[in-house]
Amino acid sequence: MRLVNTATATAPRFDEAASPTPASRARAMRGELPVALALRHAGVHTLTLRYELQGPGDAPVVFLAGGISAHRHAAASVEFPEAGWANALVGAGRTLDPARVRVLAFDFIGADGTLDAPIDPADQADAIAALLDALDIPRLRAFVGYSYGALVGQHLAARHRQRLERLVAVSGAHRPHPFASAWRALQRHAVALGQLQCAEQQGLSLARQFAMLSYRTPEEFGERFDAAPELVNGRVRVAAEDYLDAAGAQYVARTPVTAFLRLSESIDLHRIDPATIAVPTTVVAVEGDRLVPLADLVTLVEGLGPNGHLRVLRSPYGHDAFLKETDRIDAILATALRSTGDTA
Amino acid sequence: MRLVNTATATAPRFDEAASPTPASRARAMRGELPVALALRHAGVHTLTLRYELQGPGDAPVVFLAGGISAHRHAAASVEFPEAGWANALVGAGRTLDPARVRVLAFDFIGADGTLDAPIDPADQADAIAALLDALDIPRLRAFVGYSYGALVGQHLAARHRQRLERLVAVSGAHRPHPFASAWRALQRHAVALGQLQCAEQQGLSLARQFAMLSYRTPEEFGERFDAAPELVNGRVRVAAEDYLDAAGAQYVARTPVTAFLRLSESIDLHRIDPATIAVPTTVVAVEGDRLVPLADLVTLVEGLGPNGHLRVLRSPYGHDAFLKETDRIDAILATALRSTGDTA
Repeated sequence: MRLVNTATATAPRFDEAASPTPASRARAMRGELPVALALRHAGVHTLTLRYELQGPGDAPVVFLAGGISAHRHAAASVEFPEAGWANALVGAGRTLDPARVRVLAFDFIGADGTLDAPIDPADQADAIAALLDALDIPRLRAFVGYSYGALVGQHLAARHRQRLERLVAVSGAHRPHPFASAWRALQRHAVALGQLQCAEQQGLSLARQFAMLSYRTPEEFGERFDAAPELVNGRVRVAAEDYLDAAGAQYVARTPVTAFLRLSESIDLHRIDPATIAVPTTVVAVEGDRLVPLADLVTLVEGLGPNGHLRVLRSPYGHDAFLKETDRIDAILATALRSTGDTA
Repeated sequence: MRLVNTATATAPRFDEAASPTPASRARAMRGELPVALALRHAGVHTLTLRYELQGPGDAPVVFLAGGISAHRHAAASVEFPEAGWANALVGAGRTLDPARVRVLAFDFIGADGTLDAPIDPADQADAIAALLDALDIPRLRAFVGYSYGALVGQHLAARHRQRLERLVAVSGAHRPHPFASAWRALQRHAVALGQLQCAEQQGLSLARQFAMLSYRTPEEFGERFDAAPELVNGRVRVAAEDYLDAAGAQYVARTPVTAFLRLSESIDLHRIDPATIAVPTTVVAVEGDRLVPLADLVTLVEGLGPNGHLRVLRSPYGHDAFLKETDRIDAILATALRSTGDTA
């Protein structure tokens, strides 16, 4: 199933070698790894895995995976000082303290826009297993996945269970909810409409703006965008439009259209039997998440049997709570990773 | 404010004269009425009001107004036998029995696509007052409005309070929720994206499909569209897409693009001080309505003071419960219209 290109898998190319430091000092490195992967729906493709690893070489490794727009740069470091997508969860004093834990993340396959084929979340799990082989990391202390990352983590636990001690799956169920799938399908139609008009970027921007409505909650919009609409050139413009326009433009600037389409599809291809996830798993649900209903996460936990533990957050940030309620997520991670013990 | 074209207002043109019938037999007629209306945001426009009136000439009149895609044909009759948009609420044995009540409905101004200007819901109320003048109906037994129709009814009660004994406002608050406004704004952007070149109808179809997601609930989608996705020509197609495509096509076939844009905007222009709605009002809220949160209808009822009565439904149909939970809506109408008494 997984065909690692052994010529390169044992010799990853590092973009930057970390300078010598005391073992306790966080260091970060990036690398690229070509692999040949047998994709579940599309045959064998040769792909480049891009990863980033932060923390002392002797520390246990936690893999961190976010939503489809997340990437390998999870948090700032001396070597890569710009803020990462999970910056508030990785740092001194946090459970994921890079002085004590190595944090590994990668760019999802398909994220560079060069893979125009159906991508199963199981393919991402196989890619991660290949990456762990190449980096000589036999076993993760934990895999922490949020949204799409939670789906990938479930497949990693099912297909490569020896690779992780524990899974933390935030805001991701064993299958997509049909309503959320419909919502994503229409976002893909918005891209297609843009492509028809030679306005591919406008289509992608609109898709992202619709997606934002699914990531956030009416409560948040009610507080932030309470102003009356304006008439601009004879057209009604409502209070949230500036915010949504900006969110769309920001996304377009960093996201290839093909990457969005194929990773959005990938969420809808997700299906797993919870009983096959045979590692201790903390499932984190957010009450009010409009994409991943609490009821589906309860079903997931029931299917996990004695391996499953459910934590429920109430947050006005809905699906995006992982990125916003960082103190509460950190507390959940502390409990989950502590209970893993020293069996690594 | 309201400038009725008196040359025509007293002589509406009937498309079909009803044949002589016993007073108890439902009869229906349609008419057109040109009026000059001073629009709140766009000056004076001469418009044609198209209405339908069903029921015996001596019966009290109930005005029925639905969502932005509703129209004057509320229910089937001998004269106009095709099903109407509120067919299950109007008929023998119902509170709105056309043997005992006259049911009046009209095409919203802007619905024919010829008015390309901002339309305030208050403009619709002024149009209705002009129509009542022309039809020599001094006072409605009730105005029953659902969704956009509920907003129009609020303005009728505030601006022309002598015109109605009672208001029943279903799934419509005193102001749009900012999240719902954002959702509608993006639907209008989908139309604009289609208009860039020559895919106006595809843009409108996409807008309608996104709107469908706001009218229904995840519960309904979960039950109806539970199947796994398919790969069609290398693309993921989810279970709800056939349904949504059909809903979009059906809408496009009957809706001018300009009508959709201007009536969608009109919902977002709605703002009213509940204290100005000085008639007995039954507010019907649907728990789980994703467009009109229960909390906003509670605020509306509080603002109505002693005039306000709240009824809450729980329905898997969300915002569309009015069209689906017709037995329960009928029971609410029975109570509301009975309590109106004989003061007409």
